Amino acid sequence: MEKRQKRIAVDMDGVLADVFEQFLDWDEREHGSRQLRENLMGQKELEVFRNARTYLYTEKFFRSLKVMQDSQEVLKRIHDHYDLYIVSAATEFPQSLPEKQEWLLEHFPFISWEKIVFCGSKQIIDADIMIDDHFKNLDHFNGELTLLYSQPHNALADPGRHRRVETWREIESILFP
Amino acid sequence: MEKRQKRIAVDMDGVLADVFEQFLDWDEREHGSRQLRENLMGQKELEVFRNARTYLYTEKFFRSLKVMQDSQEVLKRIHDHYDLYIVSAATEFPQSLPEKQEWLLEHFPFISWEKIVFCGSKQIIDADIMIDDHFKNLDHFNGELTLLYSQPHNALADPGRHRRVETWREIESILFP
Repeated sequence: MEKRQKRIAVDMDGVLADVFEQFLDWDEREHGSRQLRENLMGQKELEVFRNARTYLYTEKFFRSLKVMQDSQEVLKRIHDHYDLYIVSAATEFPQSLPEKQEWLLEHFPFISWEKIVFCGSKQIIDADIMIDDHFKNLDHFNGELTLLYSQPHNALADPGRHRRVETWREIESILFP
Repeated sequence: MEKRQKRIAVDMDGVLADVFEQFLDWDEREHGSRQLRENLMGQKELEVFRNARTYLYTEKFFRSLKVMQDSQEVLKRIHDHYDLYIVSAATEFPQSLPEKQEWLLEHFPFISWEKIVFCGSKQIIDADIMIDDHFKNLDHFNGELTLLYSQPHNALADPGRHRRVETWREIESILFP
């Protein structure tokens, strides 16, 4: 009998999609100078970038995000060996929903629509492993393993019971030991 | 200590939103005569309505669905006493996503974005109670109670371990005994 595959829920923003880099770019474009990533550690993006909230509601913000380094290759490997779902807290920005799905189709074409979840609270998500950059999502999760994807906003926090990961190669080494 | 509220996952199409009536209307508009509901029991909508699949991808199809009788009043009562989520298998039709969220905001304004889930497979949903009109969603559910909302496509099927309900008033009497 085949062993049941472990189910893994992978976040989009700040994990697969580089939202922080987009904020740096759009903030620079609007204000003329670029903020330095190393000065922003431990700070909330919505406080650091003056018009961040406006950007989040702007057409093409989500559609044009850069892909995190190595995420395509590693996620394909995960897709082939785990029960992989993409779980994005996206209903706060309804206009982003088709953009996010198009973005996934372009950069991760092996993800079928059945395995995409756009939600608000992730408390309703049932999986074994969760990869996310926000404590509010990881803290409620009941699965066996929670990976905190490092982003400037969480860089100074104690990961607590979660395991901090810095890169997709590190995720790969944990999931394929 | 307050008792944890039971979590309930409520489907949209065929449960809150009258997709079948919309199919009857659009099919009549296109072909000149109206099919009779009583002739279509036990048949799949995509086989009964010749262009159903096209309709599902047409702008405004989901936005203009009628609301099921009594669902607004009963869902408000559920919202006040349960941990209520709306869970719709919608990622098959990406263009429907903002339409569905607008529709919810219009007809069920007490549902916040945090409690909306647009997904594909519902196997990832963790709740105590599920209300749905499709066996494929109910059969995988691990919660304590599954209500099969009667629709023509499921009308002739044995509900099995699920409990068949015909109206929102019947749902109300089960959830508020």
